[in-house]
Amino acid sequence: MVTMSNERKIYKPKPVSGFPEWLPETRLIEQQWFDHIRRVFESYGFCNIETPSVEELDVLSAKGEVDKEIYVIERLHKDDGDKGEARLALHFDQTVPLARYVAMHFNDLVFPFKRYQMQRVWRGERPQAGRFREFYQCDIDVIGVDNLPLHFDAEMPAIMWEVMNGLPGMNGEKFQIQISNRNILIGYLQTIGIFNEEDITIATREIDKLEKQGLEKTIKNIAALDLVSNTENTKIPGSLEDRIRPFLELFSTNYHTADELNEALTLNKHFDTSNELLKKGIEELSFVMSQLSHLPKDAVVANLSIVRGLDYYTGTVYETRFLDDPGYGSICSGGRYDDLAGSYISKHLPGVGISIGFSRLFARMHEKGKLPALQKSPADLMVVMPSEEQRAQVAALCQSLRRRGLKVEMYHAAKKIPDQLKYASRKGIPYVWFPETDGRPHEVKNMTTGAQSPAEPQHWKPEGKTLEQAA
Amino acid sequence: MVTMSNERKIYKPKPVSGFPEWLPETRLIEQQWFDHIRRVFESYGFCNIETPSVEELDVLSAKGEVDKEIYVIERLHKDDGDKGEARLALHFDQTVPLARYVAMHFNDLVFPFKRYQMQRVWRGERPQAGRFREFYQCDIDVIGVDNLPLHFDAEMPAIMWEVMNGLPGMNGEKFQIQISNRNILIGYLQTIGIFNEEDITIATREIDKLEKQGLEKTIKNIAALDLVSNTENTKIPGSLEDRIRPFLELFSTNYHTADELNEALTLNKHFDTSNELLKKGIEELSFVMSQLSHLPKDAVVANLSIVRGLDYYTGTVYETRFLDDPGYGSICSGGRYDDLAGSYISKHLPGVGISIGFSRLFARMHEKGKLPALQKSPADLMVVMPSEEQRAQVAALCQSLRRRGLKVEMYHAAKKIPDQLKYASRKGIPYVWFPETDGRPHEVKNMTTGAQSPAEPQHWKPEGKTLEQAA
Repeated sequence: MVTMSNERKIYKPKPVSGFPEWLPETRLIEQQWFDHIRRVFESYGFCNIETPSVEELDVLSAKGEVDKEIYVIERLHKDDGDKGEARLALHFDQTVPLARYVAMHFNDLVFPFKRYQMQRVWRGERPQAGRFREFYQCDIDVIGVDNLPLHFDAEMPAIMWEVMNGLPGMNGEKFQIQISNRNILIGYLQTIGIFNEEDITIATREIDKLEKQGLEKTIKNIAALDLVSNTENTKIPGSLEDRIRPFLELFSTNYHTADELNEALTLNKHFDTSNELLKKGIEELSFVMSQLSHLPKDAVVANLSIVRGLDYYTGTVYETRFLDDPGYGSICSGGRYDDLAGSYISKHLPGVGISIGFSRLFARMHEKGKLPALQKSPADLMVVMPSEEQRAQVAALCQSLRRRGLKVEMYHAAKKIPDQLKYASRKGIPYVWFPETDGRPHEVKNMTTGAQSPAEPQHWKPEGKTLEQAA
Repeated sequence: MVTMSNERKIYKPKPVSGFPEWLPETRLIEQQWFDHIRRVFESYGFCNIETPSVEELDVLSAKGEVDKEIYVIERLHKDDGDKGEARLALHFDQTVPLARYVAMHFNDLVFPFKRYQMQRVWRGERPQAGRFREFYQCDIDVIGVDNLPLHFDAEMPAIMWEVMNGLPGMNGEKFQIQISNRNILIGYLQTIGIFNEEDITIATREIDKLEKQGLEKTIKNIAALDLVSNTENTKIPGSLEDRIRPFLELFSTNYHTADELNEALTLNKHFDTSNELLKKGIEELSFVMSQLSHLPKDAVVANLSIVRGLDYYTGTVYETRFLDDPGYGSICSGGRYDDLAGSYISKHLPGVGISIGFSRLFARMHEKGKLPALQKSPADLMVVMPSEEQRAQVAALCQSLRRRGLKVEMYHAAKKIPDQLKYASRKGIPYVWFPETDGRPHEVKNMTTGAQSPAEPQHWKPEGKTLEQAA
């Protein structure tokens, strides 16, 4: 019972592909990222929720066939008794759980319901280099009942810009939030004679590749699609190729302000304001852009080629790209949807949301060496243990420093001072405290500069740090 | 694509038993609990780690047969290609993942390795009332290489006492940390002639029930066990029943100090210091108790009947009970182990750890109505929107308040003031701000007292709040 066998077989574990984990020094920065994101979200009055990691499989697939790869869970020692239970699966995003949560707790929530959520999600994919199968997402959504003011469509990217710009290590990065409105795309396709829903979907899929494949290839591909284009309902003459070119030209440009956008559209001779969707889309996008004028130039642009794959977006859509690496794909995306939870409740719940692919972004910044200097410990300082006789005195000193809000590691044994300093140095602890002995006062050593000077337990604090008094 | 069908089937979701979720107002308190626990852990220099939610099934079962109920995961759309991959399962605690983590990253860690971990764990159990299948645990452990000072055995309960005592809503609760040392129990059984490992395990299992079933029943049960008790090796005369009674009497008492413990033991006429294990156990427990004398009386006691079921504990063991509800079971437990990761690495890694069953404790306090007053929003204040014309001015005011570290919800529409106040009141937001208009200054209404008074955006703050400047 107490003795242990030495003949034990050793099972050497290896990392599981797609399930990342970090060393303590990297996790410390990851915590700072979460703290920052939470601080910004809460500063706008968003409340937090967490949902279970699992949902019933029927909930996840309530909208029809699930095209996401899903992990189902089951008991290792399952038996016949398990058959009566609903099948459970790990959630693949935070939107379906939000919809289920809002439907289930509808009467206990206050609308507009503003919530943020920062949880792990899972994708049951085959192992592939660079693909995560477990990762964090950070989402904000605002849900209204029957209607939701358009101002929220502008607040979303403003919040996310503040979030991304303030992430430790991200401030030197050039990224840009691109906004469009799906009604513009659909309205335009209608004005050139494409009305059929299926054709709109097919054409949209091509336009989604505009940035990647360029104008000419996109026009050629669309012309080759054999779409039903009803030219009797359009005032614009010419072949489909002729008709689509001026629009896709408009779609290839970034517009920095609402004025820039409106000017470009009205100058376009094919602009047909009789299409209601097109008109609505342009009005909405102009409004959203006008509400974002306080952000730095280049932070946010209107770009009509932004589509977003998910077909539940019905208005504003967002994507975010690194300007020096546009091919990397969007790091923060979302949009407006007409009805969040129609699969679970007979209420009309329009909403708008945006999401950061946290783990993917964090892993990229880590890989590029952009994260700040690394510490293996959260401690502000380490207190030296000069001798075993002084242990009680040193422990009391540590407690009084902790009560002032400092994070204090007490060295655990009365080893030689160089050994104790080496430990602090290896952990990256920025200050080392030498307790008073024999009339010699307390002293603190700055481990970066090497400077050592007298310090008072009631007043000393690390340079540049505001202390939060312990409760 | 844009239009939505009204004939959609509605799937009414219901809660999944054992997978708790909270309303925003309760989640807000849960966040405060996590913040507090993290602050205390970090104030002692513990670093955080997170491991993936899954481990290879072989890792989870490396120590032999797993008696815990486990959830395995698999792809919904699995095919032959999945057969080559290792089977994955959700972790059932944080100790096995820690062991695997330390073994895998051994060369990148600094020892003694002090880490905390606050993650969800899963138990693949059948649905049962009151049993969680997904819950949070909060663990701290210190791991040494080859040896680990006994001082850490005292630091663990001191930290956890500070944690539990400071949890919002817990300060009125009477709870007590009970400490023992497994060597005492085993040593005592040896002194009365029980040496066989299997017999020690069987007798221990009975002694574990001492508090529940009382002294007489425990003695009777042990006497009836048909144990091999080798009376030739013991100096103590009489039947097994006679021999075990004086010890179990010692085991039924709480000792508040090291002195109390030592006195009770040395007064006992059957005390046999020639047993090495017994001697070692008593010395260690006395030392740990002597290091905890700074805690309030009744916070920590020595109680020799504490056993802990897990057989990897080899010295100090901890449990924590509500004094007014001892039958509820332990809310915070742990102990010293001789070798953390022997299943995965050929290093000798002794450690000591302690764990709070977070979700179970939180749910209990919630159920008993002990959690603090509830707010549905983290906002410190809501700013009124007097008219659409003032929106830009109001938005700028909100931004300047946020920059000062305040959490500010801007009301989203220029509705009637009573409607706006009602919204703030329903969300439990403590203050409402009326922006200046037509020479009338800014005013703030305290929603609790109803008092309304002038306020300056650059100086106002909620009563009793320290602002943390935004980065």
